[in-house]
Amino acid sequence: MWLHTSCDLEFDITVPTPFVLMLRPRSGAQQWVTREEYRLVPSVPMFEFTDYYGNLCQRLVAPPGAFTVSTAAEVMTADCVDQAPGASFVEVQDLPDTVLSYLLPSRYCESDRFHQMATSITAGQQLGYDQVAAIETWLHTTIRYETGMSDVPVSAVEVNARQSGICRDLSHLGIALCRSLSIPARMVVGYLYGLEPMDLHAWFEAFLAGRWYTFDATQAELKGGYVVIGYGRDAADVAVYNQFGPAVYPTTQKVRVQRIEKEIC
Amino acid sequence: MWLHTSCDLEFDITVPTPFVLMLRPRSGAQQWVTREEYRLVPSVPMFEFTDYYGNLCQRLVAPPGAFTVSTAAEVMTADCVDQAPGASFVEVQDLPDTVLSYLLPSRYCESDRFHQMATSITAGQQLGYDQVAAIETWLHTTIRYETGMSDVPVSAVEVNARQSGICRDLSHLGIALCRSLSIPARMVVGYLYGLEPMDLHAWFEAFLAGRWYTFDATQAELKGGYVVIGYGRDAADVAVYNQFGPAVYPTTQKVRVQRIEKEIC
Amino acid sequence: MWLHTSCDLEFDITVPTPFVLMLRPRSGAQQWVTREEYRLVPSVPMFEFTDYYGNLCQRLVAPPGAFTVSTAAEVMTADCVDQAPGASFVEVQDLPDTVLSYLLPSRYCESDRFHQMATSITAGQQLGYDQVAAIETWLHTTIRYETGMSDVPVSAVEVNARQSGICRDLSHLGIALCRSLSIPARMVVGYLYGLEPMDLHAWFEAFLAGRWYTFDATQAELKGGYVVIGYGRDAADVAVYNQFGPAVYPTTQKVRVQRIEKEIC
Amino acid sequence: MWLHTSCDLEFDITVPTPFVLMLRPRSGAQQWVTREEYRLVPSVPMFEFTDYYGNLCQRLVAPPGAFTVSTAAEVMTADCVDQAPGASFVEVQDLPDTVLSYLLPSRYCESDRFHQMATSITAGQQLGYDQVAAIETWLHTTIRYETGMSDVPVSAVEVNARQSGICRDLSHLGIALCRSLSIPARMVVGYLYGLEPMDLHAWFEAFLAGRWYTFDATQAELKGGYVVIGYGRDAADVAVYNQFGPAVYPTTQKVRVQRIEKEIC
Repeated sequence: MWLHTSCDLEFDITVPTPFVLMLRPRSGAQQWVTREEYRLVPSVPMFEFTDYYGNLCQRLVAPPGAFTVSTAAEVMTADCVDQAPGASFVEVQDLPDTVLSYLLPSRYCESDRFHQMATSITAGQQLGYDQVAAIETWLHTTIRYETGMSDVPVSAVEVNARQSGICRDLSHLGIALCRSLSIPARMVVGYLYGLEPMDLHAWFEAFLAGRWYTFDATQAELKGGYVVIGYGRDAADVAVYNQFGPAVYPTTQKVRVQRIEKEIC
Repeated sequence: MWLHTSCDLEFDITVPTPFVLMLRPRSGAQQWVTREEYRLVPSVPMFEFTDYYGNLCQRLVAPPGAFTVSTAAEVMTADCVDQAPGASFVEVQDLPDTVLSYLLPSRYCESDRFHQMATSITAGQQLGYDQVAAIETWLHTTIRYETGMSDVPVSAVEVNARQSGICRDLSHLGIALCRSLSIPARMVVGYLYGLEPMDLHAWFEAFLAGRWYTFDATQAELKGGYVVIGYGRDAADVAVYNQFGPAVYPTTQKVRVQRIEKEIC
Repeated sequence: MWLHTSCDLEFDITVPTPFVLMLRPRSGAQQWVTREEYRLVPSVPMFEFTDYYGNLCQRLVAPPGAFTVSTAAEVMTADCVDQAPGASFVEVQDLPDTVLSYLLPSRYCESDRFHQMATSITAGQQLGYDQVAAIETWLHTTIRYETGMSDVPVSAVEVNARQSGICRDLSHLGIALCRSLSIPARMVVGYLYGLEPMDLHAWFEAFLAGRWYTFDATQAELKGGYVVIGYGRDAADVAVYNQFGPAVYPTTQKVRVQRIEKEIC
Repeated sequence: MWLHTSCDLEFDITVPTPFVLMLRPRSGAQQWVTREEYRLVPSVPMFEFTDYYGNLCQRLVAPPGAFTVSTAAEVMTADCVDQAPGASFVEVQDLPDTVLSYLLPSRYCESDRFHQMATSITAGQQLGYDQVAAIETWLHTTIRYETGMSDVPVSAVEVNARQSGICRDLSHLGIALCRSLSIPARMVVGYLYGLEPMDLHAWFEAFLAGRWYTFDATQAELKGGYVVIGYGRDAADVAVYNQFGPAVYPTTQKVRVQRIEKEIC
């Protein structure tokens, strides 16, 4: 399906503040961006680089006063997400080199503390996709999903203690559980068509049978309409904005995802 | 200055033909892309990757029949190009690792055959920027600049034999001469505001005093308005389209570069 | 100085166990490896790759039974470590792209929780090197340094609660404090000549005035003789061995660092 | 089989001369280096980096006078080289991104000039491995193989004109022929056990059925005992030494490859 996505952030800046933004969906194996827009008001110099995970990141220094970042894109993405019950566990020795780092614990996914719990949640499951599906179901039915944004990311250990969390938090716990079973898992941030209430979204992917599969513990069933902005080990890697110096939060964050018809001529 | 650039390619395809395209200007240290469009008719799946040189490349298989690729962008680029007479030669041992490969001979820049000629052209010049400026001037006054497109790229040795060439050919000779003096040089393809007649353009950069500087032997004087699409060792690396199988040439290639006013509110 | 380093690990394996090892010092800007040895008993196929941070990593599957990994190297390293009191803080907008990820919180360095504490420890210091030196001194005088190895890595928050830790733990806290002040910091594992008792060692580096500087809160004063095995964001990235499946610890770990005279003929 | 390889180069340097060396075999999918030595006389600072192709490269400035580089390694390599008659051609659209650059023409492999000739040599062959085998046989029976070293690399076009060449030259022609058929091909330099007369060697690899296969037009039949030092597009990328400034050739180049028994205890 073709989607029009947009994210407008408005900040109230007091001192010149360096930002690293990650707001540009990239064309790749799973989506194709045909139109895109990136606007800063006021206009300031902006430099782009590619991080370790292949994400396009933008650097700038926001000047004091009102500062707005507006991005929009037209993206082609899958109508339904691939699912593969029974897809096999990949032995660690057979994983591609670049996937290995997604087995390690990271800031918000303390996978080194979850082996026992993951084993119990996935008891009786065939190794691989079915384990991750069991984790996803367990999260969906056990951890209360809250909408809205929390101020700071919360780690898997903390989410497990609270038994509730936003999309990002559920993903952290899902990722930690997967990794503790030697299943590579990574964080994804982006857009989801039809999300209620509309906002930026976070979900996770697990590497099974030679490729990455999408999981989302916040949804009753997996539908299509996902648009990826960034991949990483956890929320620390894929913040849509990182600012340095005194904390700054958007005064407004407006996210929209609309289905569009693309004329083919 | 703000520029609106566009390139429309139309092909007449007989058998399904794999393409690798390089038509997406990237935001970076020298330019900032704020709006962009990439349209295929008919629409086919397209995958993007980043090559060794940091260029965004698009892969697809063109179906038989008329096939059109339309790209456009709004880009902020410098009003005037940095020049630095006297800027110093960088000793090979002091070059960044990533710059070293731009010292080696490549397909169309047989730098291993030009040392004597380069030495003679740059006789009496201070090592560094002034040598490259002398090469640029020599090219401009000696090699006849032809507009239009040639079918196949021509190497530095061939250009030197012919004493004439299009922008790409002059760049090949310029690059070969620089490298033969141990000055790293690379090919750039992109747009140039005000080019007559308007078309895609090619020029070169040399690494001096710690950074890359722009040179263009086709212009009487360096002005601003350059928009980079890709960097590489020579034309083999930065073809805006590479197709595999039976040769295919665009039936139409329409390039436009217009100055625009960006409202800043 | 020239050093001969060696690390012998012996494991008692019960089921075939995949390992990722990081035990090969690499030649680079700070050290030069002239002789090197890497021996497995029994001999099994081993594959090497380079991770995100440039470390050489070795993958293998250890067979059941006694399994020994023996590595040794002759390395040239600096007689004394560069120090630069007064070296300046680098504004975030001026950091190289590749250094930015060392500003983010990571598994064992929860820098997002230490800003206030870091500000207090470095009160009155000039921004930059002197702040890190103050952190190093504070760690050295405040956190009790324990020798020996702990079973699992401990995070900065935990180290701060315990007020004691091994080299790795002190580094985690040092790194978290630096990052909370927007100073990029990374973990280093390797060898240190003269360490008492001899073992593998961990320390940290901070990025100041355009380059990385060495800091080591376990030593009363910085001397030379450091040999780097790996760099990373924290201990999760630079484990000398990661094994997957049932936990396995070395039954023996023998580390040696000796000064040698290299004949120069 | 286990091999002991060594290469000793002796230069007579007149002015301080920057070198980039490529003399360190790397452990990887096809070989495992267990012992290694790298000695410079006189000893000078040396810096190592990894190039685009994953090769370990060493940079130094050779001082005036006699200058010796001695390298040795113990390497495990395959007893016989994998061959796969019938292995399929990979459609360009299915090639991994990183393999695409091995389809392009390069300095010494002007593949853009060989399509017709390659088609004729491989007439009647099944697409894929059998085409490359036909090219290898054609080279072996048509182009006279000369031993020894030539001063400067010679390109495929030139080799084809001369109908003779050393190992490197035959590889250039083989690579150009493969690429002209849209089969990715790359240059390899290294050691070959049993080569007569013993010297550094060059051969090529082609990408078929999802992996790289070894081809060597200088040998009547493919045996094992290959040790890779470097991969690249052609000889320009994999020179075991590149020196900058006045041309310098080794006064002595001593290469040895011996079979060894590794004690496994």
